[in-house]
Amino acid sequence: MAIQADAYELQAFMSSEFPQATITVEQVDQQGAWVRQPVDETHLRPGGTVSGPTMMATADTAAYVVVLSHIGIVPLAVTSNLNINFLRKPESGKALLAKGTLLHLGRRSVLTEVNIYSEGHLEKPVAHAVVTYAIPSSHKSG
Amino acid sequence: MAIQADAYELQAFMSSEFPQATITVEQVDQQGAWVRQPVDETHLRPGGTVSGPTMMATADTAAYVVVLSHIGIVPLAVTSNLNINFLRKPESGKALLAKGTLLHLGRRSVLTEVNIYSEGHLEKPVAHAVVTYAIPSSHKSG
Amino acid sequence: MAIQADAYELQAFMSSEFPQATITVEQVDQQGAWVRQPVDETHLRPGGTVSGPTMMATADTAAYVVVLSHIGIVPLAVTSNLNINFLRKPESGKALLAKGTLLHLGRRSVLTEVNIYSEGHLEKPVAHAVVTYAIPSSHKSG
Amino acid sequence: MAIQADAYELQAFMSSEFPQATITVEQVDQQGAWVRQPVDETHLRPGGTVSGPTMMATADTAAYVVVLSHIGIVPLAVTSNLNINFLRKPESGKALLAKGTLLHLGRRSVLTEVNIYSEGHLEKPVAHAVVTYAIPSSHKSG
Repeated sequence: MAIQADAYELQAFMSSEFPQATITVEQVDQQGAWVRQPVDETHLRPGGTVSGPTMMATADTAAYVVVLSHIGIVPLAVTSNLNINFLRKPESGKALLAKGTLLHLGRRSVLTEVNIYSEGHLEKPVAHAVVTYAIPSSHKSG
Repeated sequence: MAIQADAYELQAFMSSEFPQATITVEQVDQQGAWVRQPVDETHLRPGGTVSGPTMMATADTAAYVVVLSHIGIVPLAVTSNLNINFLRKPESGKALLAKGTLLHLGRRSVLTEVNIYSEGHLEKPVAHAVVTYAIPSSHKSG
Repeated sequence: MAIQADAYELQAFMSSEFPQATITVEQVDQQGAWVRQPVDETHLRPGGTVSGPTMMATADTAAYVVVLSHIGIVPLAVTSNLNINFLRKPESGKALLAKGTLLHLGRRSVLTEVNIYSEGHLEKPVAHAVVTYAIPSSHKSG
Repeated sequence: MAIQADAYELQAFMSSEFPQATITVEQVDQQGAWVRQPVDETHLRPGGTVSGPTMMATADTAAYVVVLSHIGIVPLAVTSNLNINFLRKPESGKALLAKGTLLHLGRRSVLTEVNIYSEGHLEKPVAHAVVTYAIPSSHKSG
């Protein structure tokens, strides 16, 4: 499963399509994709921790990046299912780092797994997600 | 399962705790809670449709509101699992309306279901979520 | 969304294809499908309650029956995702009743919801599932 | 996270508590637990492939074994959520092998991941599950 788009191309695509997003593509290779979401006060919730929706958005982006890295930049790939478990509180002053990996690349859909961490604490994920992307039927895969 | 907090109280709480949020609490009763998320260009994604993370955040908020309406305003209730299926494209120019309903109120956790719609099209949900909230063990229910 | 196969046809199909199954199709109409799983000692687990896999199989069958009731008897429809939450212990001496309902009928997949009950206690579900079936691409709907 | 019960103890427990089960515990160590489900005609479905419920039961057992290997043999641990994605058809003449791994060990619950394979084809999983077990509150963890 060769990589069809690298971190530089994926970052350029994300910046162009989601200009208001602050998430960055950090690394993309055969083992998966890392993205980084800086955290400021708009991402916090009562109790001072990072909000659930911030983590969901990070998981979805990590999954999107790993999907596009495998099928090429197909903007109309869309999330069809996302299942996320929240494991522990992220540290409020830390960015989130998320690693997306490919579980299965099918004709119609792609299954990915995402682990989310507080930066500096990569031994204990704060959340774990399984994300399915639907591939537009007009897309011809490899 | 009497309602412990009404729409007015829940809106006041949400505005206080999440001042930057634009989502509003529309209705809360025994049948569930309705929330409304206005959609502007920051919520869109390639293809002009509402982004997945916007729908996830809306689902999570609808679930939070229905949970708090049943257990009272317990700010430290946190999402433990969210599973969302995306069913069809929301209409890009329409607000999202989401209805959260209670499936099960346990001692440790609350299970809710959320249907999300494009405003004006309440016959066909655009997404369906099942959301579990963990109740802090310090909380005394009923 | 007219019904394409009734309870009698679906029961005949299930008996023919799964001759060893003891689950029965009880009712099928526009509101959904009811199935009934008798419980004997082979379905129990430590603690004397009905096992998780028995409930998962019941959920999957209820979903399958509601899917086939809407798309017609298409034996190659297969489960693509099943997400189940276990809410309370079923009563060990009671059959399970499950009601499957249609959430979304798409071209490629069908989303269903299943509530499972202990017979005689239909006010409190013991489990709740969301089940997606993939429709074979050779199938022509409607 | 030391192992609290080994493959021999877990097999003895499973044989004692689930005497009719044909699944076996193959290996248990820090990396996870392997279980093996022989497949006969009772596990097949239309099309000749292994049924979804057989795979769900295998996933649940693999998760149970990995949970018990970490918390000790606590028979009242129960599944609270199971989310499974079916990726490709298992080979009908092959046993299923499933590997369960620990994702998170909390006070109240344990999150595990399970990959299921057709025996002899360990490079391509046929299904992927995320399973949460609830730990009885009477249990004292390490």
